[in-house]
Amino acid sequence: MKVGVLTGGGDCPGLNAVIRAVTLALCQADARTEVLGIQRGFWGLVEDRLQPLRPTAVRDLLDEGGTVLGTHNRADPFDWQGRDASAEALATVERHGIEALVVIGGDGSLTIADRFARLGLPIVGVPKTIDNDIADNERSFGFDSAVAVVADALTRLKTTAHSHGRVMVLETMGRNAGWIALEGGLAGGADAILLPEQPFHLDALTERLQRRVAEQGHALVCVAEGATLADGAQHWQQLGGVARLGGIGQALTHELDQRLGKQGTEVRATLLGHLQRGGAPTAFDRVLSTRFGVAAAQALRERAFGHTIALQGDRCVRVPLSAVAGRQRCVPPGHELLDCAAVVCA
Amino acid sequence: MKVGVLTGGGDCPGLNAVIRAVTLALCQADARTEVLGIQRGFWGLVEDRLQPLRPTAVRDLLDEGGTVLGTHNRADPFDWQGRDASAEALATVERHGIEALVVIGGDGSLTIADRFARLGLPIVGVPKTIDNDIADNERSFGFDSAVAVVADALTRLKTTAHSHGRVMVLETMGRNAGWIALEGGLAGGADAILLPEQPFHLDALTERLQRRVAEQGHALVCVAEGATLADGAQHWQQLGGVARLGGIGQALTHELDQRLGKQGTEVRATLLGHLQRGGAPTAFDRVLSTRFGVAAAQALRERAFGHTIALQGDRCVRVPLSAVAGRQRCVPPGHELLDCAAVVCA
Amino acid sequence: MKVGVLTGGGDCPGLNAVIRAVTLALCQADARTEVLGIQRGFWGLVEDRLQPLRPTAVRDLLDEGGTVLGTHNRADPFDWQGRDASAEALATVERHGIEALVVIGGDGSLTIADRFARLGLPIVGVPKTIDNDIADNERSFGFDSAVAVVADALTRLKTTAHSHGRVMVLETMGRNAGWIALEGGLAGGADAILLPEQPFHLDALTERLQRRVAEQGHALVCVAEGATLADGAQHWQQLGGVARLGGIGQALTHELDQRLGKQGTEVRATLLGHLQRGGAPTAFDRVLSTRFGVAAAQALRERAFGHTIALQGDRCVRVPLSAVAGRQRCVPPGHELLDCAAVVCA
Amino acid sequence: MKVGVLTGGGDCPGLNAVIRAVTLALCQADARTEVLGIQRGFWGLVEDRLQPLRPTAVRDLLDEGGTVLGTHNRADPFDWQGRDASAEALATVERHGIEALVVIGGDGSLTIADRFARLGLPIVGVPKTIDNDIADNERSFGFDSAVAVVADALTRLKTTAHSHGRVMVLETMGRNAGWIALEGGLAGGADAILLPEQPFHLDALTERLQRRVAEQGHALVCVAEGATLADGAQHWQQLGGVARLGGIGQALTHELDQRLGKQGTEVRATLLGHLQRGGAPTAFDRVLSTRFGVAAAQALRERAFGHTIALQGDRCVRVPLSAVAGRQRCVPPGHELLDCAAVVCA
Repeated sequence: MKVGVLTGGGDCPGLNAVIRAVTLALCQADARTEVLGIQRGFWGLVEDRLQPLRPTAVRDLLDEGGTVLGTHNRADPFDWQGRDASAEALATVERHGIEALVVIGGDGSLTIADRFARLGLPIVGVPKTIDNDIADNERSFGFDSAVAVVADALTRLKTTAHSHGRVMVLETMGRNAGWIALEGGLAGGADAILLPEQPFHLDALTERLQRRVAEQGHALVCVAEGATLADGAQHWQQLGGVARLGGIGQALTHELDQRLGKQGTEVRATLLGHLQRGGAPTAFDRVLSTRFGVAAAQALRERAFGHTIALQGDRCVRVPLSAVAGRQRCVPPGHELLDCAAVVCA
Repeated sequence: MKVGVLTGGGDCPGLNAVIRAVTLALCQADARTEVLGIQRGFWGLVEDRLQPLRPTAVRDLLDEGGTVLGTHNRADPFDWQGRDASAEALATVERHGIEALVVIGGDGSLTIADRFARLGLPIVGVPKTIDNDIADNERSFGFDSAVAVVADALTRLKTTAHSHGRVMVLETMGRNAGWIALEGGLAGGADAILLPEQPFHLDALTERLQRRVAEQGHALVCVAEGATLADGAQHWQQLGGVARLGGIGQALTHELDQRLGKQGTEVRATLLGHLQRGGAPTAFDRVLSTRFGVAAAQALRERAFGHTIALQGDRCVRVPLSAVAGRQRCVPPGHELLDCAAVVCA
Repeated sequence: MKVGVLTGGGDCPGLNAVIRAVTLALCQADARTEVLGIQRGFWGLVEDRLQPLRPTAVRDLLDEGGTVLGTHNRADPFDWQGRDASAEALATVERHGIEALVVIGGDGSLTIADRFARLGLPIVGVPKTIDNDIADNERSFGFDSAVAVVADALTRLKTTAHSHGRVMVLETMGRNAGWIALEGGLAGGADAILLPEQPFHLDALTERLQRRVAEQGHALVCVAEGATLADGAQHWQQLGGVARLGGIGQALTHELDQRLGKQGTEVRATLLGHLQRGGAPTAFDRVLSTRFGVAAAQALRERAFGHTIALQGDRCVRVPLSAVAGRQRCVPPGHELLDCAAVVCA
Repeated sequence: MKVGVLTGGGDCPGLNAVIRAVTLALCQADARTEVLGIQRGFWGLVEDRLQPLRPTAVRDLLDEGGTVLGTHNRADPFDWQGRDASAEALATVERHGIEALVVIGGDGSLTIADRFARLGLPIVGVPKTIDNDIADNERSFGFDSAVAVVADALTRLKTTAHSHGRVMVLETMGRNAGWIALEGGLAGGADAILLPEQPFHLDALTERLQRRVAEQGHALVCVAEGATLADGAQHWQQLGGVARLGGIGQALTHELDQRLGKQGTEVRATLLGHLQRGGAPTAFDRVLSTRFGVAAAQALRERAFGHTIALQGDRCVRVPLSAVAGRQRCVPPGHELLDCAAVVCA
């Protein structure tokens, strides 16, 4: 059997561990299986760039960040520089005798995978999202690693904040879904956690931070890049203007510095950016990636095509690609973690 | 309202984070709530050693390992140096006007809690086990931290193993339940994972390690302290004899060194011991501890006494203390993680 | 004997370890010694804000980042909101019967200390600079911790850079002295290291990065915030214009992205900022801080006032405050580390 | 030019970084230079096992623990399974046209290198010792990484010790030279540091630990494997008897547990063992390894054969191999770090 594997979209810790587990599982089940890595996501499928993946070679990939196959943020065969190149992608599959494809990718890649599946290509998906926001999947690999980076950054910022009596603002990833800021903020001891799902009130925030500075000498704010103001148009524009230059973290810091500076409290911003998605996966993510990879190989052997693996209730299950494509999993109102944030940030 | 909090049994990362979350949640819900920490587990209840837990004081405990309350491995009021001292424990509760108790502890402590609950003491339990082996609870705080330590140790041992062409054996905790060795071994890239739940064959193990050394130049074994031989009495006694001196890791290393030494492969042992339970909790464990603490406070406010918090399907639920007491959660046959181990250790 | 201790200027890892060592050393030598912490640097000396430092209380400070005394970036008693408040500072000293002062601070604080020493105040200095740029001192505490953060960040960025075939630019601290970028870049495997001491040529840099992307699929740039262009006025203004908005890292990234984007290589920036000075000190810095603290206490007991501690040839020596004040230690031409950078970045 | 490179003796973090720097420096100076890696130390020289080291291949080795060349603890061509095999080693050199050799190794390997140098082989040495005990060299790569592991272990043990009111004993490497225990103990906040260079008094130790447990609720002991008793023959035999089974850490723990157990204080042992030499080098060690590698390449180009690189006063210098061979650098009486230990362990 010949199987192709590709990784699409932004990189995240654990991709290599999935590649490793898929390859080992397929080759162990049947030593004649040939696994082909497709380079740079769907780009390599259109451009016919493949490389063999051998068990001995992938074994060492467990704790390596990123993806040895490379990836591509915007490579859609159905919208290829203005035209449809899906036929070329299918031709590559045929040319190499690839019988099935494992697509490790986010919402975008899984939506493309769904389209190919509808065209008859045997595909198994593996959900990849550092934001933990793929529908029907409780926890994605890479997310724990990102949360650990956020928590570590907050812990570092705390000592500086405390020494100078400052408020420190940390901006994390999370345009629509605030999971990273929420878990990272909880793990890092933030005094305020601002999410896209819960517009915040600037006056209430200011007052809470003032109180916290008075109580403990400093305060930490963890804000998702997609967090928004609830205070109405005027403030929104004000922050929005600055945001255009440097993001919500900068804008919020500027505004809070104006407000709290009167009482002698400085406010400073830090933008984590790419640091959240690089580096070796945490132990948790290595295990989860291995589970996803083994489950994908098993789905493939059982010909459960057109499905993606998902974690539900601590078990790997299969969900139709069509059910996942185009949907996003945000923090729902009333979620347990919001209760936790309400308690520790009170 | 007056609430007592105690931590019992062996320490583990996240205990302080639970203490913090319980205290903050109780005081936030009702500012008049008084939280009293009971020192060194049930020992402090008998000996009347209490200390106040104030929100401002506990706030900083999030990432501190161990427990500020202290703990005790063998303090059972019902079996107190040969007699029943439960009345003294109850007297302490009454003397201080404690209306309810939060018991953060393992199987032993929760069993004692169950006995007190049957005597009418309003108790909410929080499961604490670094081994992840409390019944009806999918994941306990401290476990992720222990797994991270095991994975990190294996990663370190790997470079030494490879440089010298050696087999390295790492012994982890896990007398009856092998979760730490299983997840730690998966996360650390072990070539063999030996669990109490799956007696191993010495000949098959030897052969697999030989193969791995030939393939990749070294091999890593992750063995739980309670792992046992399937080879029958003779071998068992042989290993058992050495085991009496230094544990299964030493015994196994000695035996493998004899067998593999003939081909010039050295085998060396490392015993992680206490390193697995100390230190700051991982980001994951800080979040989980916070959830458990907040859930316990809520159960207490809703007077759901006689229950312990448990994680099921990524939600904190309540389970009767009596259902948990005296039971242990081992790795069940056919568990997904065993499939993973079978693949990567093949 | 009564001794005052203060920390001035920006915080850095190891300050608390120095405070601890000074206090323990003074109290051990003479149990009657009283150590008084002065809050927020020279601010607390003017404002008379002191707190006792007791051996039992400081013992736990070894691995805590920042300073428990607090610090202040711009508190100069000789230029106090437009007037000279040095008499108030001296009055505080007299009022509390302080016989000598330990000033842990950077160039600014040590210059103030020198002025007070000339006025007859018995002072011992401890050099504090995360930038490793205090004159006559080979290595300052906090620097190793900052270098470790930079190296870790580069390691994280590398996996993302490689997965996407990108160039990643990391901006570090270092306005005039490039030590952090130099050692951090060497430790993190940067392909280009840009320092204030060595103006760089944009064309040569572009060409080198192109070559590196071709060779290894990605490239990493480590640039100190004070790095400058050698290309003359035109380019300088061009970069300078953007620099006004977001610093050299942003400006350089913008320029490189324009140049390399034509060949399909994206360039992305990360600004480490405050993450470099927060958090627990590395093991190295804990030892160095302890040495500095013990050496300061000994200098104090031997009444070697008017001196600051310095590391020279792996020994703590004493240097006159006047010799250090107002001087800065930059990377000298021909330094061994520049040879190293020339080799690995070739 | 053709250059051979080998790594001998026990592995340590930074070996690969030296290999990388030597190779890059030699190839950059002259692109026609051919670097040959000799496998498993002097074993590969006798057995003629070589592999090419190319710049593009070594570039990624900076943060990889161990040595890609492999190493061997007991491969002496002059004492080769009972005979002299040095001629075979020299024949390998000649057969491949190797013009000079870089030997990265400890006292043993450098002594062999010295013998070969006297036979006319052009050799440059690089000192390798995780124990930091090579003569005339102030700091060796790998040592900082080992110290960091010890400090981290003590930090972990502290939370457990404190939660249970225990004394924890950590045994580190250091048979004759106690640098690792000394710096590791200082960095990890040990309450007692026991070195081979300073025999300790059991009664005084017991009393100090009792005092510390009374003061702070726990105590940490950091003991080098070669630490010895000053109490005379009787105690020595007693501890020595147990030591035969499990080392000084076990023996000391057993004895202290007997003594302190009477007051209800438990004592527990941890043996770090191989964990101290595995894993990625710290940032500090990556820089130092790079410096050593670049300096070795430069010495080679300048034909300064028969010398080894050494760090003195923060500069890489050259020392005759004969001056280093057979000597060991222990902690000298009156060393600054001993003063520090005396202060913080008082």
